[in-house]
Amino acid sequence: MTYRAPVTDILFTLEHAAGLGRAREEGVYADLDADTLAAVVDEAGAFATDVVAPLSREGDRHGARFADGAVTTPPGFADAYRRWTAAGWNGVLADEAHGGQGLPVAVWAATTELWASGSLAFGLCPMLTHGAIEAIEAHASEELKERYLPKLVSGEWTATMNLTEPQAGSDLALLRAKAERAGDGSYRISGQKIYITYGEHDFTDNIVHLVLARLPDAPAGTRGISLFLAPKVLPDGSRNDVVCAGVEHKLGIHASPTCTMVYGENGGAVGWLVGEENRGLACMFTMMNNARLGVGLEGVAIAERATQDALAYARERRQGRANGSEGAAPIIAHPDVRRMLLTMRAMTAAARGICYRAAVEIDRSRAAADPAVAKAAHERASLLIPIAKAFSTDVGCEVASLGVQVHGGMGYIEETGVAQHMRDARITPIYEGTNGIQAIDLVTRKLPLADGETVRIEIASLRDVVRRAAETNAPELGAAAPRLAEAIDALDHATAWIAAASRSPAEALAGATPYLRLFALAAGGAALVEDALAELRAGEGALGRVALARFFAENIATGASGLARSVTEGAGALDGAAAEAALGI
Amino acid sequence: MTYRAPVTDILFTLEHAAGLGRAREEGVYADLDADTLAAVVDEAGAFATDVVAPLSREGDRHGARFADGAVTTPPGFADAYRRWTAAGWNGVLADEAHGGQGLPVAVWAATTELWASGSLAFGLCPMLTHGAIEAIEAHASEELKERYLPKLVSGEWTATMNLTEPQAGSDLALLRAKAERAGDGSYRISGQKIYITYGEHDFTDNIVHLVLARLPDAPAGTRGISLFLAPKVLPDGSRNDVVCAGVEHKLGIHASPTCTMVYGENGGAVGWLVGEENRGLACMFTMMNNARLGVGLEGVAIAERATQDALAYARERRQGRANGSEGAAPIIAHPDVRRMLLTMRAMTAAARGICYRAAVEIDRSRAAADPAVAKAAHERASLLIPIAKAFSTDVGCEVASLGVQVHGGMGYIEETGVAQHMRDARITPIYEGTNGIQAIDLVTRKLPLADGETVRIEIASLRDVVRRAAETNAPELGAAAPRLAEAIDALDHATAWIAAASRSPAEALAGATPYLRLFALAAGGAALVEDALAELRAGEGALGRVALARFFAENIATGASGLARSVTEGAGALDGAAAEAALGI
Repeated sequence: MTYRAPVTDILFTLEHAAGLGRAREEGVYADLDADTLAAVVDEAGAFATDVVAPLSREGDRHGARFADGAVTTPPGFADAYRRWTAAGWNGVLADEAHGGQGLPVAVWAATTELWASGSLAFGLCPMLTHGAIEAIEAHASEELKERYLPKLVSGEWTATMNLTEPQAGSDLALLRAKAERAGDGSYRISGQKIYITYGEHDFTDNIVHLVLARLPDAPAGTRGISLFLAPKVLPDGSRNDVVCAGVEHKLGIHASPTCTMVYGENGGAVGWLVGEENRGLACMFTMMNNARLGVGLEGVAIAERATQDALAYARERRQGRANGSEGAAPIIAHPDVRRMLLTMRAMTAAARGICYRAAVEIDRSRAAADPAVAKAAHERASLLIPIAKAFSTDVGCEVASLGVQVHGGMGYIEETGVAQHMRDARITPIYEGTNGIQAIDLVTRKLPLADGETVRIEIASLRDVVRRAAETNAPELGAAAPRLAEAIDALDHATAWIAAASRSPAEALAGATPYLRLFALAAGGAALVEDALAELRAGEGALGRVALARFFAENIATGASGLARSVTEGAGALDGAAAEAALGI
Repeated sequence: MTYRAPVTDILFTLEHAAGLGRAREEGVYADLDADTLAAVVDEAGAFATDVVAPLSREGDRHGARFADGAVTTPPGFADAYRRWTAAGWNGVLADEAHGGQGLPVAVWAATTELWASGSLAFGLCPMLTHGAIEAIEAHASEELKERYLPKLVSGEWTATMNLTEPQAGSDLALLRAKAERAGDGSYRISGQKIYITYGEHDFTDNIVHLVLARLPDAPAGTRGISLFLAPKVLPDGSRNDVVCAGVEHKLGIHASPTCTMVYGENGGAVGWLVGEENRGLACMFTMMNNARLGVGLEGVAIAERATQDALAYARERRQGRANGSEGAAPIIAHPDVRRMLLTMRAMTAAARGICYRAAVEIDRSRAAADPAVAKAAHERASLLIPIAKAFSTDVGCEVASLGVQVHGGMGYIEETGVAQHMRDARITPIYEGTNGIQAIDLVTRKLPLADGETVRIEIASLRDVVRRAAETNAPELGAAAPRLAEAIDALDHATAWIAAASRSPAEALAGATPYLRLFALAAGGAALVEDALAELRAGEGALGRVALARFFAENIATGASGLARSVTEGAGALDGAAAEAALGI
């Protein structure tokens, strides 16, 4: 149960698998030398380990509590939040003009992983604030920026995103919240929003709500949605007409208040437009990449913490003999337990590699002097984001479940704390676009980017990693290169199949989820090999990264061919009268 | 949330995939015609639907409560238990000589699934009583049988199994509970046992504990363990020296009291030997097949209920357009959601087919006149049991998790009820031998049965199903036959690899878990095809079973080749200094 921030692993993967080292040579990280990066991640790791991680269990037991419109967070949360903002962690990414530190996305990604490992419920609050800061920076008027950005960047105030309504989840076209022009440039908002993370809490005096709503004369569907800023406390100090009507009783993240927010019970909540009327969804898209990457990092974070717990237990717990041991051996010596633990380690590292690579591509897209390079990097990041989000959160759930299994009966007892990881992780494949939505995004929007050139370049870069691995002839890599080459072949084949001119949308969509997993196996395996090659080059140490790359390639990436088959030959089974009979429709 | 017992599916799968029809022709079910079978399952289905299923949610919310050594079960549980025993359901399997109905294991299996679907926490109590009845029938003295069996069979009393101690879980060699000879033929037992299901409750006046303990002069290890019967209330009406010291706070099955039992705080709990001294583990083996099958059926049960909930939600919930729908379509129309639902249906049906086939083999082993047939059937059942237990419980977890995903944000809210399925299911891969232990049992004890003839016959029978499928040339089966043939080839190859004389135990154990999964994909796929062939022969209806068989073969069994590769080429990555570095040892 003692979390230790994996600072060395994070820095190593950033440098190698994520390509930060290469990007630095290109000048992408001109303002961030390696020592500064290491110092920042180390400092964040210490805070996550010492201050945030101890909140997790009590936060789960106590939960966020609701009474009379107010929410009380668990003991220690508000204090930790204040220490965290005082240390400047809220402003890592934000523009220096608004009081932020203007650090690269790669640094934000590393710190985001660390807070979420410490306590997912704690890390959610700043995650939402960050999204709002991005949207406001990109789209709000100068007046709104001046009024709200400094306090959001310092963390003196927090922010929320209000999208979902009971009838409008994945499908925002169905949303009904209303906004009317007040005549003075402001708007009056009314309606109910659900699942609002930290919609109400006791961390700060004010909460800035970003709300999607429709104007009276707006067109139907997604082109009639506008984005508004409606603070809990108005500039004149009065309470706005928005209240928290309750918090959900959830499977996990108990310390994070998931609020039902009611706007306009007394004439309408005062709000101001962000961006243009009816262009609210475009504003949301601005922050989507970072938000989805952030949730992917939550998956990595929980997987990391679950793995640490399982490793610690498996080294201590003695059951059964192994390798001719005298008496019972630590269960880590049993091949089956070892397979579970290596799976946990390798999956976590693969997901981390993909997430951090997306972060570096975002940084490249922002820093590159050559617009063509910037565009290509942006497209590469856009391609990787749905994979980073969906694969990493699936990994979070799978690894947390394996962690319970490693603990045996103890894992099922709540006091042990590892069942909580499973409960906490389970939200991440759902929110910020379900993993099904991510797969659809990958297949329908990301594969066609740059006429397919983006994915072609990505696959070529995966092949390049494998080629370099094969050239080492290092026996420690086992069959990693050939197994990974097969996975990439399978990916290539499935990609071409989806892109074929004759492909119907329904056929392509039917295989979207196995396709995303297939992509992740190839990209994750390549990330591990990239780290392994760096370890081999360094020529010292016990080659633990090489072992992970080999394990992943030989035992996990081997699933690629079956996934490719589901993509290219599995769609037929989903349709028709027989399939509908099987589903009772 | 409305559970409807899947009586038609159960009867169909028993008859075809499980081979009950064929066994009936052999005379295995001489005392049970098809109508009687159908009537019993139908009646049990009605009870599970009307009486047991409504307990589930409130049981989870309320939980079993402990105070002053007593356990209070949630509202309605004790009453439902009494109605259930009054209806005679507790005695389905037990010998008629002791008041049971002496029905076949196939019937017990069907009813076990139904109670567990209704409420896993409820179904656990009789599951434990059944195990004790089996052990007492097989090994206890006539006096103990007379004193305890009638009331255990009627359900007037319940029973428990006391194996685990804090330091002794999977490794019973480490157990320390003591038993001393009292000189009058009885024993005095002392020690602490943990994780005792229904160790204390308010259903009945007495509880019969079966306890593993060591005699003072017993040899070390598993050959020094004896089995004792120690009732809560002694024959003279006095309380025995055994108390419940507390109940665990668990991830799920909240309504099932998981007790810490303390024996002998006041001189020793009175107990009587069951079987011979130091032969306690052999007695446990007697009931192991049924107990493990029972837990496998719990996996099927939860998967079934989770699937019903997800299907109902997906037919109602409207989000996004599909197939050019006017306005939002039910999400079941979206290919990605449909893939999840078909996966849930197909995995559930495959696990059910494997479990019920094991049940029919047990019945054949008991009823066959020819000892060679009986022996072969017993070995076949023994081969299938670890697969039935481990695969079905993994399926329970995976399907329950998919059910949460289908529900989106709603799935994460406890009130919806589907997160409970996930929490409840998570214990089943752990108890009654972890799934890792099942895989080791399969590879080390079951593959060598009859010099490998048992597994050879099993694989040949899978091939026979595929051959018959291919011969139909039915277009509705799609590529089911070739895909399944490939899965069986992969299984055959992996089996030969494990059996090779040169194979070290460590190599074989390293691939045990992927091997078990591989076996289940082939056997589960064949079970679905067997049902599909029966549906095709009947020549009527909408061919839902054909669709499931096709979906499973084309989309799930396609994972077989990757699993075979993990078995035959993955072991090297688990060992050596690099792997140990990766695990921090």
